[in-house]
Amino acid sequence: MTKADTTQAADKAIATWAAAWAESSTESVQRMLVQVWAEDGQYTDPNTVLKGRAEVADYIVKFQQRLPGARFVYSKPNMHHGFLRFAWQLLLMDGTIRNEGMDFAELGPDGRFRTIVGFFGPPPSAK
Amino acid sequence: MTKADTTQAADKAIATWAAAWAESSTESVQRMLVQVWAEDGQYTDPNTVLKGRAEVADYIVKFQQRLPGARFVYSKPNMHHGFLRFAWQLLLMDGTIRNEGMDFAELGPDGRFRTIVGFFGPPPSAK
Repeated sequence: MTKADTTQAADKAIATWAAAWAESSTESVQRMLVQVWAEDGQYTDPNTVLKGRAEVADYIVKFQQRLPGARFVYSKPNMHHGFLRFAWQLLLMDGTIRNEGMDFAELGPDGRFRTIVGFFGPPPSAK
Repeated sequence: MTKADTTQAADKAIATWAAAWAESSTESVQRMLVQVWAEDGQYTDPNTVLKGRAEVADYIVKFQQRLPGARFVYSKPNMHHGFLRFAWQLLLMDGTIRNEGMDFAELGPDGRFRTIVGFFGPPPSAK
């Protein structure tokens, strides 16, 4: 892949990932995750460790049951060697910000996430 | 380990990692890396991929040859499940900021880094 292809793959993967979190039906979440999540990919954030696509799909469905209409907005990613970081905000249905954070991810050559490790809150500063 | 122990291990690992980058002799760098870097640990940033402790040690020695007296200052880390993120600034000998970035790392149960993936520049923002 050229660098442009890689960036495009990352943008597409993040957009599909965000869209999956906004879905409420198990079928829709699974359909999107097949496109964007490796079958054995691991998702970890301060609250949970999810091993494999099926656990991620279950978690997303329960997320939308808990916070109906919630959605993630994402920054453009920084990317090198298949590794990405991107910032996000979690917005409730009424537009208020519920949380913010940053995801560190590894994208496979097939354009699917192998791992995401998320951190909550504003980024630390060395200043 | 308790949570306090884990945080203490992370703080110590980051301090030793920063100290290693400020060393100019191969012996000192190697001695510090034995404490803080897994033998097969991988370091990746936008400029390089280093596989194993020996490659990391070589790279640090050349870094100090290229930028004598340069040093890193680090933020406190955010940590969960053995994963860390921390911000850094690279200061030249005269104190000017040469670069800034963020490292995303995995710390083994022995307190040594298994992986670091670094990103350069200010963090992306979803706002």
